[in-house]
Amino acid sequence: RSYTIAVLPGDGIGLEVMPPALRCLEAAAARFGFQLEFRSYPWASCTYYLEHGKMLPDDWKAHLQACDAIYFGAVGDPATVPDHISLWGSILTFRREFDQYINLRPCRLIPGVTSPLANREGKPIDFVTVRENTEGEYSSIGGKIFEGTDRETVIQNTVFTRTGVDRVVRYAFELARRRPAKKLTSATKSNGISITMPYWDERVAEIGKEYPEVTVEKYHIDILCAHFVQRPHTFDVVVGSNLFGDILSDLGPACTGTIGIAPSANLNPSANRADRTKEWFPSLFEPVHGSAPDIAGKGIANPIGMIWAGQMMLDYLGEKDAAEAVMRAIESVLATAKDAQMKGGADLLTPDMRGKGTTEGLGSAIEKEIRG
Amino acid sequence: RSYTIAVLPGDGIGLEVMPPALRCLEAAAARFGFQLEFRSYPWASCTYYLEHGKMLPDDWKAHLQACDAIYFGAVGDPATVPDHISLWGSILTFRREFDQYINLRPCRLIPGVTSPLANREGKPIDFVTVRENTEGEYSSIGGKIFEGTDRETVIQNTVFTRTGVDRVVRYAFELARRRPAKKLTSATKSNGISITMPYWDERVAEIGKEYPEVTVEKYHIDILCAHFVQRPHTFDVVVGSNLFGDILSDLGPACTGTIGIAPSANLNPSANRADRTKEWFPSLFEPVHGSAPDIAGKGIANPIGMIWAGQMMLDYLGEKDAAEAVMRAIESVLATAKDAQMKGGADLLTPDMRGKGTTEGLGSAIEKEIRG
Ligand SMILES: CC(C)[C@H](C(=O)O)[C@@H](O)C(=O)O
Ligand SMILES: CC(C)[C@H](C(=O)O)[C@@H](O)C(=O)O
Repeated sequence: RSYTIAVLPGDGIGLEVMPPALRCLEAAAARFGFQLEFRSYPWASCTYYLEHGKMLPDDWKAHLQACDAIYFGAVGDPATVPDHISLWGSILTFRREFDQYINLRPCRLIPGVTSPLANREGKPIDFVTVRENTEGEYSSIGGKIFEGTDRETVIQNTVFTRTGVDRVVRYAFELARRRPAKKLTSATKSNGISITMPYWDERVAEIGKEYPEVTVEKYHIDILCAHFVQRPHTFDVVVGSNLFGDILSDLGPACTGTIGIAPSANLNPSANRADRTKEWFPSLFEPVHGSAPDIAGKGIANPIGMIWAGQMMLDYLGEKDAAEAVMRAIESVLATAKDAQMKGGADLLTPDMRGKGTTEGLGSAIEKEIRG
Repeated sequence: RSYTIAVLPGDGIGLEVMPPALRCLEAAAARFGFQLEFRSYPWASCTYYLEHGKMLPDDWKAHLQACDAIYFGAVGDPATVPDHISLWGSILTFRREFDQYINLRPCRLIPGVTSPLANREGKPIDFVTVRENTEGEYSSIGGKIFEGTDRETVIQNTVFTRTGVDRVVRYAFELARRRPAKKLTSATKSNGISITMPYWDERVAEIGKEYPEVTVEKYHIDILCAHFVQRPHTFDVVVGSNLFGDILSDLGPACTGTIGIAPSANLNPSANRADRTKEWFPSLFEPVHGSAPDIAGKGIANPIGMIWAGQMMLDYLGEKDAAEAVMRAIESVLATAKDAQMKGGADLLTPDMRGKGTTEGLGSAIEKEIRG
């Protein structure tokens, strides 16, 4: 078995977490007997933009479509390139152009990582956020009128399509159905956002009829955020719009300890590379964290978000055993690292996990653990 | 001094927390020598709707405009009346029609209330959310096309006006300037919501020039929610759009312990009842919590959100000493109650604060403390 992976480290800490993560994936490939061909590209970075005046070359699509999956670091450097250019010219373009309509983000309390929440002992936290990833609040439709006057008015549309809503809601139900708790939480705000959100609720209720075995609950986003803090252990699968999914998938990992370990899979579950009658749209795997200009260059970024994203990619590619091994390696290194830290030994935990470790040190420990 | 207060208890626990809260205000009035005339109305409740087919009588505006302020409980009973009818027919109508463009929500860690966050000892949490309260994501403009087909598309506009954004941002800067920390955090999402949110950022930057003494920071709403959990003690004044302010003002109190104590002032700071040349728009004071059908009728709702909202109303009416006394009474009862609970004495704390107390018991204790 052999897979071609487009590697786009991007900016900031993306460049730092990518090398150890690639070594982890190499280690998994070596151990489980498959090949990974990495094709590195400097695009989708502000460095590239500053040289070329654009985030991507004209033939970016063909390059990426020649790959089985995309492994993406992080993009953005607000000091040199405005966010709306760097992000809309890269990650948001990929999601839209490759119709990666599912953004899947697992959230788990992993032993060894200290949660900012008190009294969570003995209550495992293990849920998945399913975020709509192509439409909704990120429509980019709208504009400004009466510019520069007191009547200045700026409007932006939120757009929900039947196709867009149904496919993400159905995906979430399918996921919930296959999990032990069989529970789906829908994020809404239909009491205040009176047109699009009631429609979202309607579709959840309608599609829910096909899944009588799944328990469905809906919460308005304000109180749902409160519940994430107050009882995160009660969630199983959480489905939300582009914006609500974005919020919840940062808040969840913050509650379990650090966004630094959180992974993200941008999936197009309908695409099939074997089917030559349809265009191939690769899926993309990235950490939830961004380029973090504030800590870039210090070598202290947490590499686990990137490695765990790689783990999701292996799973997606069908390398279940390798994926399993990477997950176990992350878990075992974190547990051991916490132990060592408390005993005053070598501290592998990076600062976001309240340690003094480095990207390199933590990444290498996980790599070694994967080699077995 | 004498004030006329429109009292609208609403639905669910609104009906339960209102009586003890009114007694607290009476106590403050008696002690500080002013009069409160309460005018109770059954409107803005689902009970009223089920009888009259509407949430408000035709002459509601005149009645409320005859008062100095509105004291509002909570509205909604999704089992009998859809949220969009009950809420848009009451609280959201008041905010819009009386142009209550500021929604002010203080968030404090009060000794005696257990926070779900660990390791916050010694770090006081004390910030205020300033929420835009009339436009933004709550525009109610939009619609549906191709209904019932696969092409079904639903659109809703977010509307930011120069007037609407500037006045809330300026209010937040004014507030920040008068506080010791002089810090303003702006909630944005300009990296994803590419038209309205960059405009919000622009206005914050522009108005910020008038306040060089205020430190300004901006965070995207996803990471800002994470920071609320990870370092709530670092916030001072937080300004956000209608939706973002809504989210943050539930999340904040969840981090400090319970939404049950959180108050909310819906202000029209431009209105002046003494000025007969302009229409009078009263401000409205309510708890952050809703009607909570799940615990309604049990007598266990936390009355502090309602009482603290009353405290904000007294402050707004100019009764500073009375407002101060009510705040001190809340604090002292909470601290004593926690102590008593731990020593196995009478438990005044309501279940949301991990106690076995009742609305009546806790409310009466605060009332007694106010009487002094
Ligand atoms: C009830 C609802 C419409 C309301 C809002 O979203 O404004 C509430 O959540 C609030 O925060 O006052
Ligand atoms: C960088 C930004 C546009 C992006 C988003 O909002 O989708 C990020 O926050 C994410 O969650 O992937």
